[in-house]
Amino acid sequence: MKSFGYAAHDKKSALVPFRFERREPGPKDVVVEIEFSGICHSDIHQVRDEWGGSIYPMVPGHEIVGHVTAVGGAVTKFKVGDPAAVGVIVDSDRVCENCVAGEEQYCIKGAVETYNKLDYEGKPTYGGYSNNIVVDERFVHTISPKLNSAAVAPLLCAGITTYSPLRHWKVGEGSKVGVVGLGGLGHMGLKFAHSFGAHVVQFTTSESKIADAKRLGADEVVVTKDAAALAKHAGSFDFILDCVSAPHDVNQYLNLLRLNGTLCLVGLPETPVSVAPFSVVANRRSLAGSGIGGMKETQEMLDYCAEHNIVSEIELTSIDKLAEAYERVVKADVKYRFVIDMATLPKS
Amino acid sequence: MKSFGYAAHDKKSALVPFRFERREPGPKDVVVEIEFSGICHSDIHQVRDEWGGSIYPMVPGHEIVGHVTAVGGAVTKFKVGDPAAVGVIVDSDRVCENCVAGEEQYCIKGAVETYNKLDYEGKPTYGGYSNNIVVDERFVHTISPKLNSAAVAPLLCAGITTYSPLRHWKVGEGSKVGVVGLGGLGHMGLKFAHSFGAHVVQFTTSESKIADAKRLGADEVVVTKDAAALAKHAGSFDFILDCVSAPHDVNQYLNLLRLNGTLCLVGLPETPVSVAPFSVVANRRSLAGSGIGGMKETQEMLDYCAEHNIVSEIELTSIDKLAEAYERVVKADVKYRFVIDMATLPKS
Repeated sequence: MKSFGYAAHDKKSALVPFRFERREPGPKDVVVEIEFSGICHSDIHQVRDEWGGSIYPMVPGHEIVGHVTAVGGAVTKFKVGDPAAVGVIVDSDRVCENCVAGEEQYCIKGAVETYNKLDYEGKPTYGGYSNNIVVDERFVHTISPKLNSAAVAPLLCAGITTYSPLRHWKVGEGSKVGVVGLGGLGHMGLKFAHSFGAHVVQFTTSESKIADAKRLGADEVVVTKDAAALAKHAGSFDFILDCVSAPHDVNQYLNLLRLNGTLCLVGLPETPVSVAPFSVVANRRSLAGSGIGGMKETQEMLDYCAEHNIVSEIELTSIDKLAEAYERVVKADVKYRFVIDMATLPKS
Repeated sequence: MKSFGYAAHDKKSALVPFRFERREPGPKDVVVEIEFSGICHSDIHQVRDEWGGSIYPMVPGHEIVGHVTAVGGAVTKFKVGDPAAVGVIVDSDRVCENCVAGEEQYCIKGAVETYNKLDYEGKPTYGGYSNNIVVDERFVHTISPKLNSAAVAPLLCAGITTYSPLRHWKVGEGSKVGVVGLGGLGHMGLKFAHSFGAHVVQFTTSESKIADAKRLGADEVVVTKDAAALAKHAGSFDFILDCVSAPHDVNQYLNLLRLNGTLCLVGLPETPVSVAPFSVVANRRSLAGSGIGGMKETQEMLDYCAEHNIVSEIELTSIDKLAEAYERVVKADVKYRFVIDMATLPKS
């Protein structure tokens, strides 16, 4: 099937128009015409080969919203015209214990990511900076027409990445929760933790974000350079969601956890984090990590968002302004996620 | 009350005989005449001020076994002549939420350690390298006369430090558990994990320990310099108890954990551990820590040991050979814990 999008051809050049082929849809496949595609910081890391092993040409994008234009004969969840969404993974082995448990993101064989991966036949996957995508319906989600489609796109990565650990560690009424960093991930973690009924403290390096954090649901905001303000919260948190991808000191947050508390990394700093053993031995704390969520939980999250009217805060951009958007993401100068209006993609 | 023991007077000198005063026993206090005192690696760290803040003169020792020679009028658990044991802490505030939950080791005010601490009246505490100790009965444990008293002493620190996390993370039949390091802590972790019915893999740097590990209960032994042997276990462990106090790479063990697995540090390396974020994000793993156990759980552990005939493997030594014992502990040349026969203490 013919596709058209924007691709990186090496780690230094700008993304340029790119014509390529996707597989013809099989019986279980859904063809989604893409209307909106979110820009995740990991797109930039991979385009620039900052994690190593990048596959070029690369069509990034794993926060995909559109509508269905064709379905295979065995598809049951979708019909032509339905709104639909695709996230970070497009396949998994489906038979390992993790897949059977609905945790396809931790597939033991290795899940197939939406772009910059080889599928199980050895062919590269291409993501959402394009006009269409072909995906097995198991990895396609239904979305509500009630929500702003553009603002739904970031839920497929930033949304589920924060929703899943908050659910796994049972954040809810009576919990005291911290969210570190107010960016693409952090602002979604803040919205969810607030919605779940927790008392939420937003940590930020920037005084300019205090008002915004309160508007988005924070009960308290701590500017992290204020050591006294941090110390006031020592030993008091049940759970802290660390959404920062830049190198930072996790011990100052570990020390804020009460007995059996967990700090969960979702921001994926490029360098190792340094943990003082006493930071975890005291109060029997844990430093954990979490990656996106399974297909069932992703659908649950999208349904929850429709019910509670939760979407991402976004800035809409156009495909010809990718370079500018990338620069602003790197500088954390976006409130809080760029979404590409794919109507701006030239008609082949 | 007059006491006599061995003390360090500064961080460089050998321990020497030392005469000092303990408080007169109050209504809730128990006086224990000390028969055996274990040597913990943390004694050496504190004698040498390797953690900073050491208080001199210091009488080390927090693995204490003896018998009761006097009780206050309000004591209910003990009578004169009973065997008794004292561990790492001798007081806590008793009213904070952690104390009320039976987790006095995580007392929010700060538990009073058995030596090298100031008690709540500001007086230094002195440990078990001495002829007697005065402790509130809440912090004194009953022990069974069925077990070898000398070999019980290390249960008070090495025993509870490994028992508690294995219980907290619900290790038992059907669990696959790793124990890293076969020393004072590791050999107790191995015995407990085996006794709880887990499949236990002992990790060691030393081929010479393979036979001993199997004798102590290991189902498998992996020599950690064998990368292929490690790789065979990737993603397969429910829980790993890391008993190594020397700097080491925790990522190679984190990568052996399956979905939701936990690696728990009990060895307290002096330098921070370096955690690659992907090591915890993959399989939603946790790096945790744990310190000793509460009073209720310590008693439960001692009762469990009596019922299952579990004690430490020890080498008995005498108070005049402390310097030699310390040197051998530092070189990990002891199978697996030194215990001082306090009958070798001169009669004042």
